[in-house]
Amino acid sequence: MAIRYISINSKLYSEEDAKIAVSDLSIQRGYGIFDFLKTINGKPIFIENHLNRFYNSAKEMNLEVELDRQSLTNAVNELMAQNNIPNSGIKIILTGGFSEDGYTLHKPNLIITQVPFEINDDYLYKGLALASYNHQRQLASVKTIDYLQAIRLQPYLKEKKADDLLYHADGEVREAPRANFFIVKENKVITPKTAILSGITRSKILSLQIEGYTIVEQDFKLEEALRADEAFVSSSTKNAYPVISVDGQKIGTGKIGPVTRLINEKLFELIKQS
Amino acid sequence: MAIRYISINSKLYSEEDAKIAVSDLSIQRGYGIFDFLKTINGKPIFIENHLNRFYNSAKEMNLEVELDRQSLTNAVNELMAQNNIPNSGIKIILTGGFSEDGYTLHKPNLIITQVPFEINDDYLYKGLALASYNHQRQLASVKTIDYLQAIRLQPYLKEKKADDLLYHADGEVREAPRANFFIVKENKVITPKTAILSGITRSKILSLQIEGYTIVEQDFKLEEALRADEAFVSSSTKNAYPVISVDGQKIGTGKIGPVTRLINEKLFELIKQS
Repeated sequence: MAIRYISINSKLYSEEDAKIAVSDLSIQRGYGIFDFLKTINGKPIFIENHLNRFYNSAKEMNLEVELDRQSLTNAVNELMAQNNIPNSGIKIILTGGFSEDGYTLHKPNLIITQVPFEINDDYLYKGLALASYNHQRQLASVKTIDYLQAIRLQPYLKEKKADDLLYHADGEVREAPRANFFIVKENKVITPKTAILSGITRSKILSLQIEGYTIVEQDFKLEEALRADEAFVSSSTKNAYPVISVDGQKIGTGKIGPVTRLINEKLFELIKQS
Repeated sequence: MAIRYISINSKLYSEEDAKIAVSDLSIQRGYGIFDFLKTINGKPIFIENHLNRFYNSAKEMNLEVELDRQSLTNAVNELMAQNNIPNSGIKIILTGGFSEDGYTLHKPNLIITQVPFEINDDYLYKGLALASYNHQRQLASVKTIDYLQAIRLQPYLKEKKADDLLYHADGEVREAPRANFFIVKENKVITPKTAILSGITRSKILSLQIEGYTIVEQDFKLEEALRADEAFVSSSTKNAYPVISVDGQKIGTGKIGPVTRLINEKLFELIKQS
């Protein structure tokens, strides 16, 4: 297998050698932000949107990105050229940096990784079973590295025989740990508005035109989700991915619905045109 | 200056060489727990309590500690012997480990660091200015590495001319980011009970006998804190540390009070006897 490279502060390292000092505030204090995008046939998809969000997350967390947009794009391109993985997921992480006292922010470390990404639409015929969980993510609008709850709850998912979590705040639906959530009900496609991460795929969906449907940001309760005609999650890896049940209760027909399928097709078109 | 060593999975590395791979879930997902204790004249203080909490935090986060108690104590002792820093702070971190998919828990990494720690009671005559902030820590009873809010808010503290934060949940006092909070009011010493980290120093204070005072766990509002006779924070580094103001409002006389001073003396006795 070819060596896979990782970029740390714009230098390339083999996976084995890609290490950072334990004084980094990600290790000491869980402090960092990131963004994640995919490449298809060697082309980064919606990279401008992802970079916008990345710089915004950095700003919200008082992290200075040493590289300007062009230099950061160059660093991504350099990694892609070296790795030669046409279909991939690219993760750009910015940590709190090496801190002398383990608390005060220092010059951030920039880490870029790339992993192969299978394009496969079999999943459309499977769909996800979600388990609801009462949890409001802190700093929800910022893409921080905080996944304490999601990872801690992996055994809980197994126990519930579910594929992923659906966070709600005292009954008000928010999002999945790595994806936004949508329901289809009558002539509306609805996604929660409050205290969520603004996903890039979510924003693309909000911009779509679907005949006979309006697509809206609007908060709703878990009970409404259970009574929806269709439900799906959205993310860069999953596009629009059908949700077939929540807490063991079937949503709609328990299969991918026509609106989810149509949105998915339209997303693929957008991706092709991008 | 002598080389300072860091222990990673029971092997000693110079600070410079103490690195971990970027696939670790602390860097990828902010996933880890830790504990912190001090040594005085080469003796770890209340180490049994700290190890209890460390193993409990690990369990709560589904992290397996490969070392049993004795082996972990040995690893700490080995680091201390090599570093020879009689008065120090020792941090034991357990991360989510190297994860192939950047999400699933793997074999945790155990990192132990030791830094010099100044014993100095000048601070008793200064005291802390706190700035209140509406934030409920997630998984509050577990000592995770999540300090996103505390570190993000460092510029906010500067702006407020405060030394540290006082978290409250919609007006109900919780704790400081790295210390518990106490008030003295009439014949009571009171510390919040709900959704806080059970500090080791806090538990030692709760076990003290102070003539004329009862020491209780009981939730209270921010307004009550502002009207207290005395206030202080407690932690392994700070013992009982006077708080002289909250949000610019003087607490009591604005100087260390007699009860805080007495509790501090009694803590020093406990530490000496330990």
